[in-house]
Amino acid sequence: MEDKAQVQEAIKVQGEVVRRLKSEKASKEQIDEEVAKLLALKAQLGDDGKHQFVLKTAKGTRDYNPKQMAIREKVFNTIISCFKRHGAETIDTPVFELKETLTGKYGEDSKLIYDLKDQGGELLSLRYDLTVPFARYLAMNKITNIKRYHIAKVYRRDNPAMTRGRYREFYQCDFDIAGQYDAMIPDAECLKIVYEILSELELGDFRIKVNDRRILDGMFAVCGVPDDKFRTICSTVDKLDKMPWEDVKKEMVNEKGLSEEAADLIGGYVSMQGGMDLAERLLQDQKLSQSKQACAGLSDIKLLFSYLQLFQVTDKVVFDLSLARGLDYYTGIIYEAVLTQAGMAPVTNEAQNGANAEESVSVGSVAGGGRYDGLVGMFDPKGRKVPCVGVSIGIERVFSIMEQKAEALAEKVRTTEVQVMVASAQKNLLEERLRLVSELWNAGIKAEVMYKKNPKLLSQLQHCEESGIPLVAILGEQELKDGVVKLRVVATREEVDISRAELIAEIKKRTSVA
Amino acid sequence: MEDKAQVQEAIKVQGEVVRRLKSEKASKEQIDEEVAKLLALKAQLGDDGKHQFVLKTAKGTRDYNPKQMAIREKVFNTIISCFKRHGAETIDTPVFELKETLTGKYGEDSKLIYDLKDQGGELLSLRYDLTVPFARYLAMNKITNIKRYHIAKVYRRDNPAMTRGRYREFYQCDFDIAGQYDAMIPDAECLKIVYEILSELELGDFRIKVNDRRILDGMFAVCGVPDDKFRTICSTVDKLDKMPWEDVKKEMVNEKGLSEEAADLIGGYVSMQGGMDLAERLLQDQKLSQSKQACAGLSDIKLLFSYLQLFQVTDKVVFDLSLARGLDYYTGIIYEAVLTQAGMAPVTNEAQNGANAEESVSVGSVAGGGRYDGLVGMFDPKGRKVPCVGVSIGIERVFSIMEQKAEALAEKVRTTEVQVMVASAQKNLLEERLRLVSELWNAGIKAEVMYKKNPKLLSQLQHCEESGIPLVAILGEQELKDGVVKLRVVATREEVDISRAELIAEIKKRTSVA
Repeated sequence: MEDKAQVQEAIKVQGEVVRRLKSEKASKEQIDEEVAKLLALKAQLGDDGKHQFVLKTAKGTRDYNPKQMAIREKVFNTIISCFKRHGAETIDTPVFELKETLTGKYGEDSKLIYDLKDQGGELLSLRYDLTVPFARYLAMNKITNIKRYHIAKVYRRDNPAMTRGRYREFYQCDFDIAGQYDAMIPDAECLKIVYEILSELELGDFRIKVNDRRILDGMFAVCGVPDDKFRTICSTVDKLDKMPWEDVKKEMVNEKGLSEEAADLIGGYVSMQGGMDLAERLLQDQKLSQSKQACAGLSDIKLLFSYLQLFQVTDKVVFDLSLARGLDYYTGIIYEAVLTQAGMAPVTNEAQNGANAEESVSVGSVAGGGRYDGLVGMFDPKGRKVPCVGVSIGIERVFSIMEQKAEALAEKVRTTEVQVMVASAQKNLLEERLRLVSELWNAGIKAEVMYKKNPKLLSQLQHCEESGIPLVAILGEQELKDGVVKLRVVATREEVDISRAELIAEIKKRTSVA
Repeated sequence: MEDKAQVQEAIKVQGEVVRRLKSEKASKEQIDEEVAKLLALKAQLGDDGKHQFVLKTAKGTRDYNPKQMAIREKVFNTIISCFKRHGAETIDTPVFELKETLTGKYGEDSKLIYDLKDQGGELLSLRYDLTVPFARYLAMNKITNIKRYHIAKVYRRDNPAMTRGRYREFYQCDFDIAGQYDAMIPDAECLKIVYEILSELELGDFRIKVNDRRILDGMFAVCGVPDDKFRTICSTVDKLDKMPWEDVKKEMVNEKGLSEEAADLIGGYVSMQGGMDLAERLLQDQKLSQSKQACAGLSDIKLLFSYLQLFQVTDKVVFDLSLARGLDYYTGIIYEAVLTQAGMAPVTNEAQNGANAEESVSVGSVAGGGRYDGLVGMFDPKGRKVPCVGVSIGIERVFSIMEQKAEALAEKVRTTEVQVMVASAQKNLLEERLRLVSELWNAGIKAEVMYKKNPKLLSQLQHCEESGIPLVAILGEQELKDGVVKLRVVATREEVDISRAELIAEIKKRTSVA
C-alpha cells in the first residue's frame, strides 16, 4: 500500500475534480468515472467497515429504467408491427460468436470488437452487428431464401472520445430479405418499410437518400481515381454530410494524394441530387456512361424509382450521388434515412453536455442499409452466394428522440398498465382486499393491492395518481354488507356503487380502449 | 506445419469419429464439436481455395429458428401478460457488469462466470443471473420499493459434463417485489403468479413446494448439526429430489461427518409434507419449537397459507421440509415448482441423447425463488437493506416442452402472421400486384407478394399452403377491367370476386379473430 498521507492527499485532489465536474454539469458518464476513481482511492485506505463497491454500470452501458422501458416497448411495437405486416419471420442468435466468424468482416473497425477472456475452450467475441451472424446462420443452415427481422443488442468498444451520445451496448433492429429474386423488388420493399416506420414513429420530416455502390465505383473510375484508392476516396466522400466540399476536396488532394482534376470531376457528380430523371440524365452522361458498372447501377435506380412510385413513397426518397456508406460488404444499392427537422435532432444527454458541434450535426441518420450479395458466400464452404438486401433502424436515436419528446411535452409516461387498485378506507380488510384482487386477476383484469395490512386511503389514492391507475375499487364494512364495491374514477373523483356481480364487466367497459 | 501425411492420417481418424457419432445419433453439440476438429485438421493442409470457417455457434449456445421464435413469443406473451396483470414494471440492465459486482455472490459457482478479455479499461463479466444486477440497480439508484419483471439472457460456463440439456446462454424470466411490507403479502403474490403462469401455459399438472430458510436452519440447530455445517448439510438435503433418503443420510454421515443420531433426526423432519396444518403441528413440536428461528418461519408459513387460501391456489402448494434451494442469499421463504406429469417431463434433445438417468429425473423444476432481504444491502455503501422476494420462471424448460408438444401434435407452427398473398395468374402484372399490396400495407393488413416479375400461380399458392397464409387476392386482366379482385380461401379453394372498394373491409372481416 502507498503511504497513507499520500493517498489522503490524492483523495482530496480527486474530490475537487468531482466537485468541479458536478458544478460544471459535466456528463453523468464523466462524473461517474471520476467518482469511481475517488472510491478506488478511498478503498486504498483500508477497510473502515464500509462497503467499497464501485456502484456503476460498465463504461458506455446503461440501465433502462421503467419509464425508458415503456418508451422502448412502444417503439419496438411500432417497428415489429411493420416488419410483421410485411411478412417477416424472426430469428435469434447467441450474443457471442466464435472469434473467427467475425474476423475479416469489419476492416479497421475490428479493433472495436469485444473479446471474451480465454478461460479454456473456444475463442469468443461479442457480436458487433446482426448482419454477420445472419450471414453465418444462413450459410450454416443452408438457407437460400428468408425474410427475417432480428432485434437485439450489439457491442462495440468505441473509442472514449467517440462515445458522446453513443453507447458500447446498443440495440439494432434489422430487416433483411435473402434470396435470388428479380431486381429491385425486395430493395423497394425495404425502402417502403423505412418510410412506414419513420412515418408511424412521428419523428418529424425525413428524407431517404439512395445511391449504388456500382455508381460510386464507376464514377471513381471515370474520374480517374486509381483502383486501389476507391475505398479511401469513398470514405472521404462519406464525410460530405458533415464537411463542406472544399474540405472534402482538400482531404482528397492533400491527404489521399488525388489529382486536383480528378477531385473536381468527382465534385461535379457528388453535388447531384434528384429522382428517376437524374438517373436517366446520367445514363446519357458522356463520361459516366462509359462505365458498365455505373450504367448497371443507374438502370437499377431507375427501376427502383418506378417501384417506389407504385408504393407512393417517392416524396421522401432522393437519389444522392454523395451517399457513400462505409461498410465494405455492400455490393449494390445503399440508402440512409435522415431526419430533416433541426428541432427534432436526436441529441442525447451526453451530446448535450459537451459534444462538439461537428459531432452533433451528423446525428440525423436514423436508418440505413443496402444490398450485400457476397457476405453469405464468405461463410459457405463452396462459396455459394445468397443475395441479400436489408435495412437497420437506428433505434437508440429513436429512443433518444422519443424520450426528449415525452419530456418536452411533460407527458406522463405510464410504466404499468394497472386498471384498478383494490383499496379500503377502513382497518382489518386485508383479507377482503386480497379476495377481491384475486377475483379480478382471474378475470384477466390488471389490478393491484397495497402490501400493507391497514394502508391509509390517502396513500392508496396517491399511488393511483402517481402511476396513472384510472380506477379504484373501494371496500368498506357497508359495501361488504350491501354486496357492492365503491368504484372511484381517479381523474374525476366520481364514485358509484357497483354490485359485486357486475364489477368485472363494469371495469372492463370503463377501461376498454374505445 | 506438421508433416502432411501425418495430418492426412489424423483427418482419416477424425472422419471416422464423426461418422460413428452420426450413426449413433449422438447429440448435435457433440457432433458439431468433432466436426470442428475435423475442419481444423483439414485447414492445416493449407489453403486449397476453399473457405475454412468452422460454421458453428459457440459451445453451449444455439440459434433460434423462426419456428422456435414463434413458440418463444407465445410463451413470453403469456408470462408478460401475467406480470403486467399484477402491475409490474420492467427494467433492463447491460449484459455485462463490472467483475467486482458479481464477486462474492455465487459461492462455488463463481468459476462458471464468463469474463471479458482485458482490452484495457474495466474488468467485466457477463451476468450470471438477473437477481444480482437487480440488487445493484436498486442500490445504485437508491430505490427502496419496486415491483418489476426482467426477461433477458444470462451466461454460465457450465461444465461440459453438465451441459446435457442445459445451455451456456439461456433466458431468465424474473419477477421481484422489493420493499418493506407486511409479512407474506408479496410472497403470496409471487406464488399466485407461478400458479397462474403454469396453469396458462398448460404444461400439465404441477406442484409448488414451499419451505423457509429459517425453518431449515432451526431444524439443523435442534437436530444437533454444528453451525459451520449448516450450508453443507443443507446442500445434501437439496438432493432429496434425486436420491433416496438412505443415500442422502450416507452422504451426511460418511462424507460430511454428521452423527448418525443427528442425521436420523433430520430424516424424521424432511419426510414431512403438508399444508397449514403441518405448520401448526410443528409449532407444537417439542424439539423444533425450541428454535426461535424455526418458529418465526413456521408462523410465516401459516400466514402465507392463509393468504394462499384467499387466492385459491392451495390445491397445488405443499409445505415440504425437504426443499432446500442452493443459493446462499435466501433469508426467508423459498419455493420451487415442479411438473408432476412424467409424460411431460421437459427432456431436451441433448438430454435424450445420452444424459444419465440421474440428471433427467430432476428436470421437472420449472420455477423457483424466495426471499432475499440482505442482497441489496451488500451493494449499499451504508449497508441499507431493501427486503426482496421474487420468482424466476425456468423458461428454457418451458420452451423445450412446448416444442415437443408442437412436434408431438404435428402442429403447424406459423412463423409469420401474413393474412393475404397478392398473386396473379397472368404475366406482366407485377406493377398491379405491387400497387395492391401497398394499398393493403397502408390499410394495416399483413400482406405479401412474390419478388418475381412473373411467378407461377401454383408456386404462389404453394407458398400460401406452406406458410399458412389463409387468403389470396388474385389479379388478372379481367379482374382489373371489372374493378374487382378474386379472393381465394386457401383452405377451401373457394373463390369469390370482391370489388376493389370493399376488399380491405372483406379481408379484415375474414381474418379478424372471432
